[in-house]
Amino acid sequence: MLTNPRAERVKAVRALGRRSSRERAGRFVAEGPQAVREVLAFRPETVIELYVDPEVSGRRTDILELADKHDVPVHECSADVMTALADTEHPQGLLAVCRPVDVPLTEALSGQPRLVVVLTNVRDPGNAGTVIRAADAVGADAVLVSDASVDIYNPKVVRSTVGSLWHLPVVRGVPVPDLLEACRAAGLRVLAADGQGEQLLPDTDLQPPHAWVMGNEAWGLEPEVLAACDEVVRVPIYGHAESLNLAMAATVCLYASAEAVSTAAGVERRTP
Amino acid sequence: MLTNPRAERVKAVRALGRRSSRERAGRFVAEGPQAVREVLAFRPETVIELYVDPEVSGRRTDILELADKHDVPVHECSADVMTALADTEHPQGLLAVCRPVDVPLTEALSGQPRLVVVLTNVRDPGNAGTVIRAADAVGADAVLVSDASVDIYNPKVVRSTVGSLWHLPVVRGVPVPDLLEACRAAGLRVLAADGQGEQLLPDTDLQPPHAWVMGNEAWGLEPEVLAACDEVVRVPIYGHAESLNLAMAATVCLYASAEAVSTAAGVERRTP
Repeated sequence: MLTNPRAERVKAVRALGRRSSRERAGRFVAEGPQAVREVLAFRPETVIELYVDPEVSGRRTDILELADKHDVPVHECSADVMTALADTEHPQGLLAVCRPVDVPLTEALSGQPRLVVVLTNVRDPGNAGTVIRAADAVGADAVLVSDASVDIYNPKVVRSTVGSLWHLPVVRGVPVPDLLEACRAAGLRVLAADGQGEQLLPDTDLQPPHAWVMGNEAWGLEPEVLAACDEVVRVPIYGHAESLNLAMAATVCLYASAEAVSTAAGVERRTP
Repeated sequence: MLTNPRAERVKAVRALGRRSSRERAGRFVAEGPQAVREVLAFRPETVIELYVDPEVSGRRTDILELADKHDVPVHECSADVMTALADTEHPQGLLAVCRPVDVPLTEALSGQPRLVVVLTNVRDPGNAGTVIRAADAVGADAVLVSDASVDIYNPKVVRSTVGSLWHLPVVRGVPVPDLLEACRAAGLRVLAADGQGEQLLPDTDLQPPHAWVMGNEAWGLEPEVLAACDEVVRVPIYGHAESLNLAMAATVCLYASAEAVSTAAGVERRTP
């Protein structure tokens, strides 16, 4: 049982809160039962080790069984150590050190994608994570995150994906022009979501395949990105609100697409 | 110019961060240029006074002109005082003390509402504010907030409505059964949004008039509330995501309704 919050191995995990440490180590942290369960269920080969507060492990036997099944080393640690390891103020007693799961762009777009999400210059971790979660919810084929966006392994991004980070292919670190070119080469129509667009979402042909391009939360999409897209689409505002936030706009656009995609493909909706 | 962060009047404004102080004083605080501009534009009669950091006022002449037009007293204050007044870590130099704007339930539902949002047991301020913003964006007729939900005058709620708090009628402090009864009496079909619902959103008749009932972010809607609704509707999940968060689910449901409402009413969509 680890009881020393100042131990080197504890410091090394805690350091993964910083992007530079994550990149140097080639590791990142997944915190909390939901994230740990999802990475063990979907990408167990990427889990290096688990840290568990024994007070919590009794209530999370399903997760510990998954770890055991995949031969993931489990370290028990005191509540103090857990607090030192974790990014959150109130850690939930369970934390996994993981290897990156992003895939190369060509791999993400192989296999005739129908619906893809492109994030350009998204800086807020909560927004980025929520859009990845929305992309997962609508069954998108991939999320492509540009080099100028927040790091997808930032603890707040990981947390706000609520496990979706491990559910669908995610690409990172590629410049926007290369992302758009690859979408086009994969046969995707490229739709920009932008509050300044003249075309309204309900008037937009959402037949697959297509990609949605989402911009920065404050300033939207740059002129050169807008110019490189096939259509610039706006979610209509019927009341007095000036705008929607990025996560809301993305969710509305993606659900509109999901309906069109599922109708076109005759995809069965998941039943609970 | 106010320069003493420990002055009684500064403390009195700061105290409005607490619900009990807000209720005793019958006042709350709107922070930042967006909120202050919206309350001055839409409900100027509810603004008691403005606090302005002179470093900011030069860039916000439109707001100060609005205050002048409506005879709102403006107090200049130092950056130190602004920090002492504000709830945010990095105040934006502009803050209004306001009177409540909620309306009685009967008033909110007079005039044949077509689309109404009911919040029951919503506890997270960011979620509540974002749903009010979404209700405004879709042109809903009113938002009804139950007595067991977060206070709509909580600074984080006010902030996350981004001005929408002053754009449409909001009711607060009413028990859920009374809210549902009033919706029914106003001729609204009552739709519960719940991840456990068997009916899918795309299969739901969204012809107006109706009300959407949203529950707690963690546990959803209570069985007795579900039983009191006409239909229990689930946003479909096409991928592996376990769920959507409350704000995402509400936004998707409301936009689906907005399309049906605007088609039915022949409402013009707002152009920028």
